Amino acid sequence: MTGRVIGVGLGPGDPDLMSVRADRLIRGAATIAYFRKKGRPGRARTAVEGMLRDDVTEVAMEYPVTTEIPLDDPAYNDALAAFYEDVAETLAAQVEAGEEIIVPCEGDPFFYGSFMHLYTRLKDRVRVEVVPAITGMSAAWTATGLPITWGDDVLSVVMATLPEDLLEARFREADALVVMKIGRNMDKVRRALRTAGKYDRAWLVECASMSEECVMTLAQAEGRQVPYFSIVLVHGQGRRP
Amino acid sequence: MTGRVIGVGLGPGDPDLMSVRADRLIRGAATIAYFRKKGRPGRARTAVEGMLRDDVTEVAMEYPVTTEIPLDDPAYNDALAAFYEDVAETLAAQVEAGEEIIVPCEGDPFFYGSFMHLYTRLKDRVRVEVVPAITGMSAAWTATGLPITWGDDVLSVVMATLPEDLLEARFREADALVVMKIGRNMDKVRRALRTAGKYDRAWLVECASMSEECVMTLAQAEGRQVPYFSIVLVHGQGRRP
Repeated sequence: MTGRVIGVGLGPGDPDLMSVRADRLIRGAATIAYFRKKGRPGRARTAVEGMLRDDVTEVAMEYPVTTEIPLDDPAYNDALAAFYEDVAETLAAQVEAGEEIIVPCEGDPFFYGSFMHLYTRLKDRVRVEVVPAITGMSAAWTATGLPITWGDDVLSVVMATLPEDLLEARFREADALVVMKIGRNMDKVRRALRTAGKYDRAWLVECASMSEECVMTLAQAEGRQVPYFSIVLVHGQGRRP
Repeated sequence: MTGRVIGVGLGPGDPDLMSVRADRLIRGAATIAYFRKKGRPGRARTAVEGMLRDDVTEVAMEYPVTTEIPLDDPAYNDALAAFYEDVAETLAAQVEAGEEIIVPCEGDPFFYGSFMHLYTRLKDRVRVEVVPAITGMSAAWTATGLPITWGDDVLSVVMATLPEDLLEARFREADALVVMKIGRNMDKVRRALRTAGKYDRAWLVECASMSEECVMTLAQAEGRQVPYFSIVLVHGQGRRP
C-alpha cells in the first residue's frame, strides 16, 4: 500500500507561479480533494481549472459554516472541528485503501492554511506530505515594486482580526509589516496604522498575481470596499548600501 | 528595443520548488548574471546548473567583500555601494542595447535579497521585473512537519545579526518566530530564546529543501556548528478548531 495525502500549495493565484512540483502533482492527480463553501466553486478548485486529468475523481470538502457564526462563538469552533474530523476520517479510509489524494491549497499550506487542520488529524494515522508554495504576501510585495525588508529589518505578519489595541501595538513596533485577513476589518486597520504612525507609508494589494490584481497606496484606497484576501503592506527602511 | 532585467527567485534550493515561470525563464535565458563571492562558484549559479542553454552568456557579479570587513564598518557599505553602482551600470548598458538579462536569485528576491540593491539602481533607468519565489522559511517550516501559524498568530521574522537585547525583546513578543542569518550568531540566539522563554519550543533547520537538509530541535543541536543559511523556528500556538 502506497497511499498518501499530499497538501499541495498553489501559491498566490497565478498558475505560472505554482512550483514545478505542484504543477506536476496537480496535472497527474487521480483524486483531488479541496475545501470550499457550499454552493461555491471553491477558490482552490478554480485555481486548478484546466489542469486536471479528464478522469480525475473530485472530492469537495464543504465547510458547514464560514461567516454565518462569529469566529469567537464556541459553536463556530465546534462545527468546524466536527467537520475536520469527518473529512479526515473519509480521507484516511481512502488512503488506507491505497489511494493517493492531492489536496490543492491556496497559498502556502503551513502558513495560516486550512489544510493544517486536516494535517494534524491525519499525520499520525497515514502518510501526509506538504508542498510549500509562494505566499500571497510575497506576490503582494513584489506587485508593489518595492522590496519589503532590508538589512536587519524585523518583518511582522499580523492578522487584521486582532483587537484594535493589539494591532496598534504590533504596527508600532514593526519595521516591515504585512497585514492579512483585511475585508471588514479595513477601518480598524486604518485607524491603528494612523495611531502607529505608519499610515502614510502603507500600501494595499488586492488579488496579488491574479488578473484582478490592484495595487495602490492605502490613502488612494479611502472609501474602497476591500476583499477579505487583500493585503496591507508597509515596507521596511533598513540598512542598504 | 525590448531589453529588460528579470530578477528570478529560485526559491529555497530544490529545483522542483522553482516556479513554473522561473524554470522557463532560466532554461530559456540567452544571458544570465549572478552574484557570487570571488573564487567561489556562487550559490545562485550552482542552483541553475544543468538547466542552462549551451550557448548562454554568463556574467559573474563578484562581491568585492563579504565577511572580511564587519557589517557595521562604513568601509563595508562604501565598497558594496560602489560595486552595485558598477554592475548596475554594466547591466543597464546591455539592456539599453536590447538585451534581456536573467538574474537568478536565491530565495525570494524582495525578501532580504541582494537583487534589491541592483533593482533600486536600475528601476528608473531600464525595465526591471521580479519573479517572486518560495522563501527559505516556508521550506523550513514545511520541513519541521508542523504548521508555523494558526488563527491570529503574529509571525515575527528576525535577523540574528541584531543586538542581543533587541533579539530578546522581539522573541518575547512573537507568537510564531523565524530567525534568519544564524551562523556565528547562534550562541546569542540561544541565550535570547532562553531569556524569552521560547528555547524549549525552538527548532533548527539547515539547508531546507536541499539534499543536505537537517531538521532538529535546538536542544538537539547543542554544540553544533551551524551554517549561515540555517533558520531557527518557533511555531505559533494560536486558535485552532
